[in-house]
Amino acid sequence: MTLSEDDLIATLFAPLAGPGGLGLLDDAALLSPGLGEEIVVTVDAIVAGVHFFPDDPPASIAIKALGVNLSDLAAKAARPAGFLLVLALPPEADTAWLQAFSQALGETAKRHASPLLGGDTVRTPGPLTISITAFGTVPRGTMMPRTGARVGDRLYVSGTIGDAALGLALRLGREGLGTALVRLLDPAAQDHLTDRYLHPAPRLGLRAALQAHASAAMDVSDGLVGDLRKMLRASRVGGRVDLGSVPLSQAAAAAVALHPEAFETAVTGGDDYEVLTSVPQPRAAAFEAAAREAGIAVTPIGVVESDAGVAFTRDAQPVDYATGSFQHF
Amino acid sequence: MTLSEDDLIATLFAPLAGPGGLGLLDDAALLSPGLGEEIVVTVDAIVAGVHFFPDDPPASIAIKALGVNLSDLAAKAARPAGFLLVLALPPEADTAWLQAFSQALGETAKRHASPLLGGDTVRTPGPLTISITAFGTVPRGTMMPRTGARVGDRLYVSGTIGDAALGLALRLGREGLGTALVRLLDPAAQDHLTDRYLHPAPRLGLRAALQAHASAAMDVSDGLVGDLRKMLRASRVGGRVDLGSVPLSQAAAAAVALHPEAFETAVTGGDDYEVLTSVPQPRAAAFEAAAREAGIAVTPIGVVESDAGVAFTRDAQPVDYATGSFQHF
Repeated sequence: MTLSEDDLIATLFAPLAGPGGLGLLDDAALLSPGLGEEIVVTVDAIVAGVHFFPDDPPASIAIKALGVNLSDLAAKAARPAGFLLVLALPPEADTAWLQAFSQALGETAKRHASPLLGGDTVRTPGPLTISITAFGTVPRGTMMPRTGARVGDRLYVSGTIGDAALGLALRLGREGLGTALVRLLDPAAQDHLTDRYLHPAPRLGLRAALQAHASAAMDVSDGLVGDLRKMLRASRVGGRVDLGSVPLSQAAAAAVALHPEAFETAVTGGDDYEVLTSVPQPRAAAFEAAAREAGIAVTPIGVVESDAGVAFTRDAQPVDYATGSFQHF
Repeated sequence: MTLSEDDLIATLFAPLAGPGGLGLLDDAALLSPGLGEEIVVTVDAIVAGVHFFPDDPPASIAIKALGVNLSDLAAKAARPAGFLLVLALPPEADTAWLQAFSQALGETAKRHASPLLGGDTVRTPGPLTISITAFGTVPRGTMMPRTGARVGDRLYVSGTIGDAALGLALRLGREGLGTALVRLLDPAAQDHLTDRYLHPAPRLGLRAALQAHASAAMDVSDGLVGDLRKMLRASRVGGRVDLGSVPLSQAAAAAVALHPEAFETAVTGGDDYEVLTSVPQPRAAAFEAAAREAGIAVTPIGVVESDAGVAFTRDAQPVDYATGSFQHF
């Protein structure tokens, strides 16, 4: 390190600060919700060597660190209001790395209207660790819960599922699926999957559609199969899901065609940062129309039922994935 | 680790959750400020081997992790409203450690009416790292700033200064001050200093006194001398401070009598978690009375002046401490 903590903050991070950040000169930041608003708060930490590769580009690490938190706000139908950054920096983090990181962080923050409000920078003998607390606002009483799914609701996911998990398999290049994809998948498809692994795109555009029509939502971060189970368990219901209807990108579909294991990886692998939501049947058409207007694809994948547990099928055959969920932990 | 992340949360941390924490079942928590209230947010991370000793008792680590954040809220005259916890756990963190940690965390949270609202638990190959985001409320427009000190204001500190830094010196036991204190200081005094190092006591009781009378405040975490410079620089003023009037505990005074270096350590060493504040001269008597009513000692140590920089004296002689501030970073 050539910069002290104070220099680091003044040079690289103060330019990212929003008005509530008080120029990063104070010990604390201030959130001033509008009349009738509540504040949604969420925190996620990512650790080098656990959640990302230490040699990922610093810009990618910044996009992921903020993106995974904004994705939680997206699923709660909240409007971003800013974030706090904790950086635990190992000795090898140098000024060039920090410049690239802070620049990309600033761009991502600006794109999503979520300014830096404050934070803490500490030294660690361990791996780079980035913890972000993100704030969003909702009109009082409208935070989209994880617990609101009701029998008869339709289940939807946004975007496409599995790209990031296949991007990770590519990146790991392990014997089997990894080496098959590296060898056989065309370069453009490989780039697509890698990009989706590195750069989560929080579905903040779904806010109005969720707020108007959905009963429950969460973001898909630990694998669709496991996260479906979590959401329905939290809602004290079950469901039936046709995995054959889970939306795949062209690249992911090509991977599945090349290697059978790719499908299980896609639906259980995690890091999607898509929105999983339940919508009462009578609102389904309006939800789909609102999502279309927002320019975000949503696909029905199943229904909520009263029986505990989730029955997964594919091509009308029952499917049982033992783990169903990628455990970072 | 014998517990999964979900088990860990359900068993050890869900019992600590406040109503806004939604049973820790959701991806996010909800803050619902009252009419006319704003939310003060602050985050501080502590790293094993940097900010605390890996073999400190887990209860002490919990008290410090939450205490340093509540201390920031105390200095901002905010009423605690809850916190988010990020735990980055090394492989050696076992269930017994986590039980002791979560129990003490829960007790500290309860004592200060600051419930757990959510968080994230991740695995790390590095040292145990704990990052806490704390929330407090203030009536709109009344957050005590760091930038409000004005020429003529009196400067005060709460409690006593230097105990924690001397407790750290004792704990390190380095040749010189450390070994002298271990050898010469009576055991009760040693216990007092060690306790103050391990267990910061956030001065939340000063809230009303600060809100009614103070112009600026910050908590003393990086050493009184350096933090005084920071607060007055942030306020674009300077000051004159008589270090001879800085309040010392009996134990710290005994340490100073035994070893001359102890005084510099006390006023520059950090980890005090006392409140440093400026009070307009006409409000000084009322501020002192309000603090007395709250049962918290406050001591005048200097005045705010227009010249840049802070002139420190002791026994009427100028003092210049080169560093003045303990840099954790």
